[in-house]
Amino acid sequence: MRNITVIGEILVEIMADSPGSGFLEPIALTGPFPSGAPAIYASQAARLGQPCAMISAVGNDDFGRLNLARLAADGVDTSAIAIDPDLPTGSAFVRYRPDGNRDFVFNIRHSACGSTTLTPKAHAVLAQTDHLHVMGSSLFSDSLLHANLTAIETVKARGGTVSFDPNLRREILGAPGMRHAMTRILGLCDLYLPSGGELTLLTTAQTKAEAIAELLRRGPRAVIHKAGAAGVSWHDRNGALHQPAFAVTELDPTGAGDCFAAAFTCFWLRGMPLAETLCLAAAAGALAVTRRGPMQGAATLPELLAFAAQNHRTPG
Amino acid sequence: MRNITVIGEILVEIMADSPGSGFLEPIALTGPFPSGAPAIYASQAARLGQPCAMISAVGNDDFGRLNLARLAADGVDTSAIAIDPDLPTGSAFVRYRPDGNRDFVFNIRHSACGSTTLTPKAHAVLAQTDHLHVMGSSLFSDSLLHANLTAIETVKARGGTVSFDPNLRREILGAPGMRHAMTRILGLCDLYLPSGGELTLLTTAQTKAEAIAELLRRGPRAVIHKAGAAGVSWHDRNGALHQPAFAVTELDPTGAGDCFAAAFTCFWLRGMPLAETLCLAAAAGALAVTRRGPMQGAATLPELLAFAAQNHRTPG
Repeated sequence: MRNITVIGEILVEIMADSPGSGFLEPIALTGPFPSGAPAIYASQAARLGQPCAMISAVGNDDFGRLNLARLAADGVDTSAIAIDPDLPTGSAFVRYRPDGNRDFVFNIRHSACGSTTLTPKAHAVLAQTDHLHVMGSSLFSDSLLHANLTAIETVKARGGTVSFDPNLRREILGAPGMRHAMTRILGLCDLYLPSGGELTLLTTAQTKAEAIAELLRRGPRAVIHKAGAAGVSWHDRNGALHQPAFAVTELDPTGAGDCFAAAFTCFWLRGMPLAETLCLAAAAGALAVTRRGPMQGAATLPELLAFAAQNHRTPG
Repeated sequence: MRNITVIGEILVEIMADSPGSGFLEPIALTGPFPSGAPAIYASQAARLGQPCAMISAVGNDDFGRLNLARLAADGVDTSAIAIDPDLPTGSAFVRYRPDGNRDFVFNIRHSACGSTTLTPKAHAVLAQTDHLHVMGSSLFSDSLLHANLTAIETVKARGGTVSFDPNLRREILGAPGMRHAMTRILGLCDLYLPSGGELTLLTTAQTKAEAIAELLRRGPRAVIHKAGAAGVSWHDRNGALHQPAFAVTELDPTGAGDCFAAAFTCFWLRGMPLAETLCLAAAAGALAVTRRGPMQGAATLPELLAFAAQNHRTPG
């Protein structure tokens, strides 16, 4: 089994119980849920039995302990998650508006994970890493950006592979240097996994077909385009393969893309046939939205297989 | 009417709905409530009709907007509360343990209010200030400590007065330079308002009578000792006056000391007879604990008078 590493944010999520606009008065909330896109990715990968390590930092508080306990229970290697003595664990308050959009109050950039650096323990993890997964959401601080760029070099130098999910959060859009960094990582990755309109985020081309062709010229071996209810499609120099979405009742969309990406990279690294990989990864994304809480829907391989069978989709 | 100013932390409080230990799993919460000891003080003073300004900073987020709206609605002068474009509004999660103690997860030191500085608008407020209230809880960052020390000089130079509530939070106990700063402010204040065991925090003497005598030698004109259910006592060079506590059902003790201090300083500045001042301030502290949420129990003067009358205590 290949070792995966992911470097980025760990936070707690606090969810409003009822839809509405923002957080301007006391309301019923539920939390803290363990969260952070790369942490969700690591949780999902580990639940699928893949050796997976995370490089990050939490505060010396209950929110950090909650996340560390959850990741360790899933089997994630937490040896390179530092406990910052000073900065708090990151947090995100989320409330659904009646129209399905979400309002957030974030404390991430100035939280412990924002100052993640490659400690000796992190370098020890990277020395064993076969595949690095990079998320755009994790490039919000200079130290995290630098850690990811260094890790890409380290992993590629030892013959490893890199996947890149642009996964942009509103708060980091337009940050100085962000487009340059994203473009650089796009050129270095093996798999590129944009969602919806992110497909044309870094391209000159603005149509889907032209954007895919441009992306394949610029670096990645394959583009995996996640289109939500419209399913997911794989594109490489040889052609394309489409996987329809599973029909599920959406309870909480947070984490669906991260669970998809984790399952996809795990099965791809195992050399599973592409159609089966896409099918089971789509099942992982579908199951993620059926549970409330960002990390609560990460499934095991038997659960993915059972879900696909129930939905009359034999993988492959 | 004399103008009061207070400089310190603004934050939201998120309260666990049920007692228990810490925040290690998702639980039912209620919030965000406007909070921060000096903000509670300002809210209570303004609700009593006293001109009161606050110098602080919030983030450019719903938690900051919630606090600004609440303080403005109470009549607090918010002109010197800066909106930090980068740092988040402070937050505190609180959960009661079955034994009545509280567990916290704080993000205050690295929040917007931690970087409060004396802006031109803050200096404009200080140029009109007759009384400054200083809280130990607000001395947790160099910039807030410096702002309070500068404000003490400014207000005293124009003939104003200073009250000081040591109001220590666990997180700032033992911070470098804290004892020195607290001792310096003790020597400069007119009124010193310790709670319970804080009476001997800065004294060599360790008995109550000796500590009061020592404190009165070292600076303040009067020591007002808040002893919770045991009531409150005034001590000056001429003697002492005791005010028993009002019997109330405690729903949430947060803010009681701050509401007491606000009511006390307001009535003291108005020249109200001492016994009446102590009685109505005790009523303000008692009413504060009868509502859930740190700032929800701040009463108006008619409410204080009605409450004192209902409890068969004619003020004075």
